[in-house]
Amino acid sequence: MKISSIKSTSSGGTSAASGSSTGFGSGSGASRSFNLRNLSKLMLPPLGSSLSQSTSDSDKRVVSPLDSRYRCWETFMVILVAYSAWVYPFEVAFMDARPKGGLEVADMVVDIFFAVDIVLTFFVAYIDSRTQLLVRDRRRITFRYLSTFFIMDVASTIPYQGIAYLVNGEVREGMVYSLLGLLRLWRLRKVKQFFTRLEKDIRFSYFWVRCARLIAVTLFLVHCAGCLYYLLADRYPDRDKTWIGAVIPNFRQESLWIRYISSIYWSITTMTTVGYGDLHAQNNLEMIFNIFYMLFNLGLTAYLIGNMTNLVVEGTRRTMEFRNSIRAASNFVCRNHLPPRLQQQILAYMCLKFRAESLNQQQLMDQLPKSICKSICEHLFLPVVKEVYLFKGISREAQLLLVTKTKPEYIPPKEDVIVQNEAADDVYVVVSGEVEIIYFNGEREEVMGKLGTMDIFGEVSALSDRPQTFTFRTRTLSQLLRLKQATLREVMQSKPDDSALIVRNFLKHQ
Amino acid sequence: MKISSIKSTSSGGTSAASGSSTGFGSGSGASRSFNLRNLSKLMLPPLGSSLSQSTSDSDKRVVSPLDSRYRCWETFMVILVAYSAWVYPFEVAFMDARPKGGLEVADMVVDIFFAVDIVLTFFVAYIDSRTQLLVRDRRRITFRYLSTFFIMDVASTIPYQGIAYLVNGEVREGMVYSLLGLLRLWRLRKVKQFFTRLEKDIRFSYFWVRCARLIAVTLFLVHCAGCLYYLLADRYPDRDKTWIGAVIPNFRQESLWIRYISSIYWSITTMTTVGYGDLHAQNNLEMIFNIFYMLFNLGLTAYLIGNMTNLVVEGTRRTMEFRNSIRAASNFVCRNHLPPRLQQQILAYMCLKFRAESLNQQQLMDQLPKSICKSICEHLFLPVVKEVYLFKGISREAQLLLVTKTKPEYIPPKEDVIVQNEAADDVYVVVSGEVEIIYFNGEREEVMGKLGTMDIFGEVSALSDRPQTFTFRTRTLSQLLRLKQATLREVMQSKPDDSALIVRNFLKHQ
Amino acid sequence: MKISSIKSTSSGGTSAASGSSTGFGSGSGASRSFNLRNLSKLMLPPLGSSLSQSTSDSDKRVVSPLDSRYRCWETFMVILVAYSAWVYPFEVAFMDARPKGGLEVADMVVDIFFAVDIVLTFFVAYIDSRTQLLVRDRRRITFRYLSTFFIMDVASTIPYQGIAYLVNGEVREGMVYSLLGLLRLWRLRKVKQFFTRLEKDIRFSYFWVRCARLIAVTLFLVHCAGCLYYLLADRYPDRDKTWIGAVIPNFRQESLWIRYISSIYWSITTMTTVGYGDLHAQNNLEMIFNIFYMLFNLGLTAYLIGNMTNLVVEGTRRTMEFRNSIRAASNFVCRNHLPPRLQQQILAYMCLKFRAESLNQQQLMDQLPKSICKSICEHLFLPVVKEVYLFKGISREAQLLLVTKTKPEYIPPKEDVIVQNEAADDVYVVVSGEVEIIYFNGEREEVMGKLGTMDIFGEVSALSDRPQTFTFRTRTLSQLLRLKQATLREVMQSKPDDSALIVRNFLKHQ
Amino acid sequence: MKISSIKSTSSGGTSAASGSSTGFGSGSGASRSFNLRNLSKLMLPPLGSSLSQSTSDSDKRVVSPLDSRYRCWETFMVILVAYSAWVYPFEVAFMDARPKGGLEVADMVVDIFFAVDIVLTFFVAYIDSRTQLLVRDRRRITFRYLSTFFIMDVASTIPYQGIAYLVNGEVREGMVYSLLGLLRLWRLRKVKQFFTRLEKDIRFSYFWVRCARLIAVTLFLVHCAGCLYYLLADRYPDRDKTWIGAVIPNFRQESLWIRYISSIYWSITTMTTVGYGDLHAQNNLEMIFNIFYMLFNLGLTAYLIGNMTNLVVEGTRRTMEFRNSIRAASNFVCRNHLPPRLQQQILAYMCLKFRAESLNQQQLMDQLPKSICKSICEHLFLPVVKEVYLFKGISREAQLLLVTKTKPEYIPPKEDVIVQNEAADDVYVVVSGEVEIIYFNGEREEVMGKLGTMDIFGEVSALSDRPQTFTFRTRTLSQLLRLKQATLREVMQSKPDDSALIVRNFLKHQ
Repeated sequence: MKISSIKSTSSGGTSAASGSSTGFGSGSGASRSFNLRNLSKLMLPPLGSSLSQSTSDSDKRVVSPLDSRYRCWETFMVILVAYSAWVYPFEVAFMDARPKGGLEVADMVVDIFFAVDIVLTFFVAYIDSRTQLLVRDRRRITFRYLSTFFIMDVASTIPYQGIAYLVNGEVREGMVYSLLGLLRLWRLRKVKQFFTRLEKDIRFSYFWVRCARLIAVTLFLVHCAGCLYYLLADRYPDRDKTWIGAVIPNFRQESLWIRYISSIYWSITTMTTVGYGDLHAQNNLEMIFNIFYMLFNLGLTAYLIGNMTNLVVEGTRRTMEFRNSIRAASNFVCRNHLPPRLQQQILAYMCLKFRAESLNQQQLMDQLPKSICKSICEHLFLPVVKEVYLFKGISREAQLLLVTKTKPEYIPPKEDVIVQNEAADDVYVVVSGEVEIIYFNGEREEVMGKLGTMDIFGEVSALSDRPQTFTFRTRTLSQLLRLKQATLREVMQSKPDDSALIVRNFLKHQ
Repeated sequence: MKISSIKSTSSGGTSAASGSSTGFGSGSGASRSFNLRNLSKLMLPPLGSSLSQSTSDSDKRVVSPLDSRYRCWETFMVILVAYSAWVYPFEVAFMDARPKGGLEVADMVVDIFFAVDIVLTFFVAYIDSRTQLLVRDRRRITFRYLSTFFIMDVASTIPYQGIAYLVNGEVREGMVYSLLGLLRLWRLRKVKQFFTRLEKDIRFSYFWVRCARLIAVTLFLVHCAGCLYYLLADRYPDRDKTWIGAVIPNFRQESLWIRYISSIYWSITTMTTVGYGDLHAQNNLEMIFNIFYMLFNLGLTAYLIGNMTNLVVEGTRRTMEFRNSIRAASNFVCRNHLPPRLQQQILAYMCLKFRAESLNQQQLMDQLPKSICKSICEHLFLPVVKEVYLFKGISREAQLLLVTKTKPEYIPPKEDVIVQNEAADDVYVVVSGEVEIIYFNGEREEVMGKLGTMDIFGEVSALSDRPQTFTFRTRTLSQLLRLKQATLREVMQSKPDDSALIVRNFLKHQ
Repeated sequence: MKISSIKSTSSGGTSAASGSSTGFGSGSGASRSFNLRNLSKLMLPPLGSSLSQSTSDSDKRVVSPLDSRYRCWETFMVILVAYSAWVYPFEVAFMDARPKGGLEVADMVVDIFFAVDIVLTFFVAYIDSRTQLLVRDRRRITFRYLSTFFIMDVASTIPYQGIAYLVNGEVREGMVYSLLGLLRLWRLRKVKQFFTRLEKDIRFSYFWVRCARLIAVTLFLVHCAGCLYYLLADRYPDRDKTWIGAVIPNFRQESLWIRYISSIYWSITTMTTVGYGDLHAQNNLEMIFNIFYMLFNLGLTAYLIGNMTNLVVEGTRRTMEFRNSIRAASNFVCRNHLPPRLQQQILAYMCLKFRAESLNQQQLMDQLPKSICKSICEHLFLPVVKEVYLFKGISREAQLLLVTKTKPEYIPPKEDVIVQNEAADDVYVVVSGEVEIIYFNGEREEVMGKLGTMDIFGEVSALSDRPQTFTFRTRTLSQLLRLKQATLREVMQSKPDDSALIVRNFLKHQ
Repeated sequence: MKISSIKSTSSGGTSAASGSSTGFGSGSGASRSFNLRNLSKLMLPPLGSSLSQSTSDSDKRVVSPLDSRYRCWETFMVILVAYSAWVYPFEVAFMDARPKGGLEVADMVVDIFFAVDIVLTFFVAYIDSRTQLLVRDRRRITFRYLSTFFIMDVASTIPYQGIAYLVNGEVREGMVYSLLGLLRLWRLRKVKQFFTRLEKDIRFSYFWVRCARLIAVTLFLVHCAGCLYYLLADRYPDRDKTWIGAVIPNFRQESLWIRYISSIYWSITTMTTVGYGDLHAQNNLEMIFNIFYMLFNLGLTAYLIGNMTNLVVEGTRRTMEFRNSIRAASNFVCRNHLPPRLQQQILAYMCLKFRAESLNQQQLMDQLPKSICKSICEHLFLPVVKEVYLFKGISREAQLLLVTKTKPEYIPPKEDVIVQNEAADDVYVVVSGEVEIIYFNGEREEVMGKLGTMDIFGEVSALSDRPQTFTFRTRTLSQLLRLKQATLREVMQSKPDDSALIVRNFLKHQ
C-alpha cells in the first residue's frame, strides 16, 4: 500500500512540476511544455526561474528576450543589418553616396525599422550578468540601455543626409556623410550576437553554422574591399593610371554592373591569392591599399583554415576513436591467440559500443549531482526491479537502495554471462533481451529454459554460496542490471525485515 | 576428475560456439570462419544474429547486403558511377550533349547496368535503423525502397534523349536534356557511401582512404569547373572576348583534346591559387563564374588542409607520446641523480612500453564487460596457474578466482623483482622469460638457480611472513603474473579446502 | 574561549602574512599589496622570497628586474629596437647606408639609449637559473654580463661609421659598414623576450599577443625582403633588366616613397602568394633571391596557419565542450524517455555547469597540496558550518574535520534533494539559495517551510536512521555542502565530547 | 649490523650491475657507461641484452647496427644518397644523361661506395622483428638480405652506361639508360630511415628534425619538377612554343646555370602557388605536366601545413596549460574573495608547479612497475628517513615500508603546513628547505625554532593524538615527505619490535 501511495506521490510530483515548469522555461509563458526546441531559450536563464514569480508584478509591456516573437524580430533585424552593411559601401563607392530610386526608399524603410528597434529595446527585459536573473523592471532596463548602447544605436540610425537636406535645402555629396555612414557598421554587432547564439544551439549543426559565419565575414570583407578599391580608382586624378582604367579606358561610362563585378572579381582574386594579374595596382595609392589588403587576407585565410581544421578534427573524432578501439582490440586478439569465439565476442562488443551510444551513459551520470542520478535510476530501473520475484513486496527504500547500486551493462549475443561450476558471483536482472539457461551434462549442452525481461539469474548461487549450476548465455543483445553479491548482502544486513522477505521469496520460488 | 570434465566442457562449448558462429557473421552463410576480413561485415549487424534463425523462412532470392558477391557488385557500381559523373559534364560542354561513337555505346551500357541495379535493390535485405536487425522480408524491402530512393534512382537512369528520339524521330540538342542529365549526379551518393564504409574498415589505412576521398572530390570538382567554364566560352556570342578565345583565336576549330586540356589547366591553376594569368576571365559572365569558383575553392582548400592536419596529427601522435615519455623519464633521472643501474631500468622500461604494445592491454580490458574479461584471463593465464606447484589440485573455482585477480606485468631484463631481506610482499608467477635466484652472502652475489615458465616465487615469504631470503632478478624480458599477498590470503580464507591443499603443496615443496 | 582565541590567531596570522608579503612579491619593495597586476612579476621569482632578507645588505643601486620602472624602461627599449630593426635595412637599401637629416639624428639618439642600457645592465639583478634566486651581488652581475651578452651588445651599438669618420676624416660608403650594421639585428632578442613574457601574462589575451607577435615577425620580414630586393636591382649593372627597371625605366630618379612602396608591394605580393606578375624577376640573381624567399615564405605561411589553427582550436574549445555535453545529455534523455521534469533538471544542470565555472573548482582543489586546500575550505565553509545549530559549540578541530570532508554542490532550482520516505542518507548544509520543506500527505504536496543559509537538513534521518519524513526541494539555485552520513559518524566516534554536544544540540532542536 | 651489511649489499649490487651493463647497451662493447647519448641505441634493442652473452661465439666480423662507427658510415651514406638523388635528374635533363668532367668521376666514386655498402651489409647484424633480438649469425644475415633488399640494392648500383660502353665500345645516349637510372631513387629509403631514427632520438629537437625532413622532401621535389619541366621543353620540336623558349628564344645556347635557375624558379613559383605568370605552359604537354604538378603540390602544401600545425600545437601546449591553470586559479581566488595570503599561496603554488617540473614526477612513477618504483623511493628517500631520529635503528624492512608509502610534496615559502590547535594529522619529514616552528601565545606569534633536512614534525600530535601545539610554516621552498597517520600506525602494528623502538626514540627525544 505504501508503495502505491508513494507511486501516486511521484506522479503527483511530476504533474506539479510540469505545471510549475511554465515558469521555468521563460517568463513570458509562451513555452508550456519543455522540449528541445526550447533548449536554446533555457540555456540563457537557467537560474531565472526564481524571479518568474515576481513577473506578475512587473510591467506587462516588458517583453522577455526569450519570447518567440521577439526572436523572430531579432532574426528579421539581422537580415536588415546584413542589407544595410552591404548597401552602404556600395552606395559610397558607386553612387557617390547618393542612392537613387529603389535603393533610396529601401534605405529609408530600413532606417525606420531600426528606429522602431531602438524604441522596442526599452521594453525588453535583460539578464543581469552578475546575478544571472532576468530583469523586467522598466527603470533598470532604461538605465542600462541609456548607459550602454543607446547613443551608438541612435547615431547609427540618424539619416544625416536627410537632416542636412531639411536644414540646407539641398543634397550635398560629401566625405562627411560617407564617414558618418560608417557608424552604420556598428549594427553588425547584432549579426555577431546572432551567430554566437546559433553556435550554442544544438538544433543546428555546428559545422554549418560556423561555415555560414565564416562565409558571411568573408563575403562582407570582399565586398568592402572591392568597393573601396573602386573608390580609389574613381577619385584618382589620372584615370588611365588606375587598376580598372588600364583595362577599361573609359570605365566611368561603363554600366554599374560591369564596374561592380570587376571590383568584386579583383577583390576575390586577391583574397584567394589566385592573383591572375589581369587587374593589378597601377599607382602608389593602390599599392598601399593592396599591401594592407593582402596582409589582412593572410590573417583571414589562416583564420579560415584554422577554423576548418578545427571542424574537421571534431567531425572525424568519432570515426578515429572507433578505428583506434577496433585496431587495439584486434591486435590484442591476434597477439594473444584467443579462441575464435572469444575473438568474436570482443570485436562484437567493441563494435556495439560505438553503435549504441547508450553504453556511454555512465560518463554522463558521473557528471550529474547525486540526487538527479538517483531519480534517473529510479525512473529507469525501479519498474523492472520491483517486478523481480526476489524483491517483490520489499520496502521501497530497500528497492531504491538496490536500484541505485546496480550497474547497467549491454551484453552482445551468444555470450556466457555466468559459466556452470564457477564460483558464486554477481546477480543479474534482465532488462531487455533474452538469456538461455544451459546445462552441460558432461557430453553436450542442453538448453533448459529461457529468461526474459524482469527475470533474475545468478541469485541461487549468490544467496547459497554454491557454484553455479547452469551456464547463462545471451541469445540476443541483452541489457542486464548487474548487482554485486557484496552489495546485495549489505542491503540485506541493513534491512532485516526486507532480508527475511527476500529469503522467503527465494525459498518459495525454488 | 572434476577439472578434466570441465576442461572438456570448455572445449565443447567452444566448438559449439564456432559452429553457431556461422549464423553470427551474416545470414548468407558465405563466411564460415570468423576473421578480420569479415570485420567490416560484422560491423554492420552485430545485433542481427538473433534473426539469422528466421532466415530459412524468408525468400531465398533475398541477398544480404554483407554478401561478398554483392559487395563486389557495389564496388563495380561505384566505378560506373565515377565514369558516369566524369562523362556527363564532358559531353554537355564539349559535345553539345550529343556523345558520338564509343562514348554513346558506353553510356548506354552504363545505363543498363544502373537499371539492373534498381531491379536488384528490390532483392537486397537492409538493416533497420531502429532495431539494428537485418530485414529480409520482400514486402518491407519493396516498400522501403519505393518510399525512399526509388524515384530518384529511376529518374537518374531514364535515357531522356533516347525516348525523345523514339517519340519525335529526331535527336534534338537542348538545354532541357542537359539539365535532366544533372539528375545523374544523384548517383554520387553511392560513392559517398563507399568511402564512408572504407573509412571504418581497419583493413585499409585511414590516411590513404581519406586522401583518396579528398583527391576524388577535388578531381571531380576541377573537371566540372573546367567543363562549365568552357561551356561559358563556347556559348558566348563574341568568341574573341572569352578566356580561351583571347589566347586561341579560333578555338572551336582546335582538337577536342587541346580544348579539354586547356579547360582543366585553367581550372586547376585557379583551384590551387597558382593563377599564372595566361588564361583569365575576359567578360562579365566569366568573372561572375570565377568569383563563385574562387570562393568555393577557398573553402575546399581550407577543408583539404584541415583534413591533412588531422591526419598528420593522428599519424605522429605515437612518436610524440614516445618522445614526451622518454624526455620526462630522462629529466626525472637526471634531476634526481639516480644510480646508473636504475637509470637503465627506467629508460629501458619506457622504451619497452612503446615497443611492446601488449603492455597497454589493461586499458582495453577495462572497457570490456566483466564476463568477457573473465574469459580472457581464463584463456590466457589459467593454463599457467594450473601448473604452478602451489595450486596443483585445487578446485577450478579457486583457480579462477586467483586468475582473475592477478595482474600481468612485463619486466625488462636485469631487474630485481624481489630483493633479499625485504619484507614479505606479492607473489609472482613466471609466464615467460627467465628469472635468476640470487643469494648475497655478505660479500658477493651467487646465482642459486633459475626459474622459468610456470614457476612461482615470493611465495615462501608471503605465506610464512618472513623477509625474502633471495633476490629474484630477471635475466630476459619476463612476463610475470603479480598476485597480491592480501588477495592470496582472501582466497585461502574463503576456500578452506583449497587452502589446506595449498599449504600441503607448499610444505611438500620446501 | 578557545575558539575565539584561535580566531584572533588566525587574523593575526593573516596580518603578519600580509606584512611579510612585501618581501614575497619582489625585492624592490615596489609592490606592497598582492594583486593580479603583480602576477607577471611573481611568476618570475616565486622562490626568490627567502633572499629578500639579505636584500638590505646588497648594493642599493642594484635594480630588480621586476621593478615597475625597469619594466617601463624595457618596454621603451623594445620600441627603440623595433625602430632600429626597421631603419637599418631601409638605410642600406635606399640611402646607400648614409642616412640624412632626421634619420641620422634619430639613429644617434637610439644608439645613445642603447649605450645607457648596456651600462644599466650592470646594475640589474638577475635570476640564477639553477637556484631560481635573485642575485643582487654587483660582482656576480658584472661577471655574468661580461661572460654572456656584453660583447655582442657593445658590438651592436658602436657607431662604426662615426668612428671611421673620426679616424679618416671622411664618410665612406662601403659594404663593410653595411655588414657591421647587421650586428644591430642582435638587439631583436629583446623583442623576442618581450613577447615571450607577454604570452605568459594572463592579463593580456593570448590570442592577441600571439597575433601581434606573428604580425610583427611578418612585417619585419616583408620589410627586409623588400629592401634587399631593391638593393639587388639598384646594384645590378643593366638597370633595365631588373624587376623594377622593367616597369619604371628610370627608377633611380623616382622619389624614395615610390621606390619603397613598390618594393614592399612586391614583397607582400610574393609573401602572400598572390603573385600578380606585374613585378617579377628579370635576371638570374633576382631569380635566386626569389627562390629562397618563396621557399622561406612557404614555411612562414605554414607557421602562421599552424599558429592560427592552434588559437582557433583553443578559442572554440569551450563552446565545443558545451555542445557535446548538451548533446549527450539530450540524447540520453530522449533515448530513455525520461519524464519531462527529469529532462528539465538534467539539461538545466548541464547548462548551469558551463555557465557557473565555480562548479569546476574541484579540479583546481585536486592540484593544490593538502595544507592549502584545508585553508581554503576553512575560509569558505567554516563560517557557515560553525553557525549550523547542530555543530554549535563543538571544538574547532571537529568543525575543521567536518569542513574538510564536505563536498560543495550546486543544485539547479526545483530539484528534489531528498525525497520523502527514502532511506536515510547524506546531510546537507545550505550555503546559499533557498530550500523548501515539502510534505506529501498522500494526496497533494504541502510546503511546510523554507530553509536558508546555515540551515541543515537530512540530519534527522541520518542521526536516527529512519526514512526521510519530508521532501527537500530547492527553490532557487542553491549551493549545498554535502556531508556523507558515514563521515559524520566517523567524526562523532573519534570525538566523544563533540559527539555528545551534537546529540544534545540535536535533541534540543527537535 | 644488519643495516650496514645490507647497505654494502646494495652498493655491491650496484657495482655488479654497472659492470654487467656493458652487455646491455650494445653487443659491440663500444659504450661502457650508460648515458643519454646511448639512448637512441638502447631504444632499438632493449630486449637484446640476453643475447649479448652468446656474442662471443658468433663471428667477430659481424658489426652491430648500433656500433658508433657503423652509425657514422650510415650517416655518410645518407649524404651520398642525397648527392645521388640530386645529381641524377640534373644529368638527365641538362646533360642528356652524359655527365662530364668532375660529375662523372664523382658519380663513379659514389657508386663504388654503394658497392662497398652492399658488401658491408652482409656483415651487419639485424634485429629480428618477431623476437626483438639481435641476430649475429652470418648465414641468417645473408639469407635475410638476399631475400629482401639485395636485388634492388644491386640494381640501383650497376653502372649501366659503363657496361654498355665496355660491351659496345661506344657511349650511347638513350631513354633506356635514363629509365634505368630511376632505380637509383630506390636508395632514398635510406634517407627516410635516417630521419625516422632522428625523430625518435630525444637528443634532437623534434621541431627541427621534422622541419629538416619536410624541407628536404620539398627541395627534392622542386628539383625533380624543375628538371623534368626543362626536359619537356628541351625535347619539344617547336622550341619557341615552350615555356622557356617563349621568354629566352635560343635557350639551348644559354649557359647551364641560367637554364637550371630558370627551371627551379618556375618550379618553386608554382609549388608555392605564387604563380607570377612570367613563365607558363605554352603547349599541351606542358599543361598536362602542370596539371599533375599543381595537384600534387596541393597535397604537399596541405601536408606541410598539417605538419607545421602539429608542431606549433605541441610547442605551445605548455604555455597554454600554464595560462589555463593560472587563469582558473585567479578566477577561483577572485570569485571566492579569498584572503590575500591564501591568494598568494595558491598562485605561487601554481607558478611553482610549472617551473619545477619535478612536481609532476608522480605521473611518471605511476607508469613504472612496482619493483622499479620501490627502487626509486629507496634511492631518493631512504637516506633521509634513515636519519630521522624517530626511525633510527629500526629494521630496514620497516624503513622500506615507510619510504614506499610517503608522498613527496613541494610547498612554496611562507605557508602553514600544520596549524596550531588543529587535530592530529599527517607526519612530515623535511627533505630540503627550512620550516619554522611558530607558537601563538594569544597575542602574537613567536618563532620557537627552525627545522632543516632530516627533521620530522607533526609526530608528537600523530603519536599522542593530541591537537598540534605549534604552527609549522615553511621559510623557503621546501620538499617534504608526507606520511599519513594511518600508514604510520599500520606499519607500527605489523612490526611490533620496530614499534617499540619508535616509541622509545620518541620518548627519549621529548
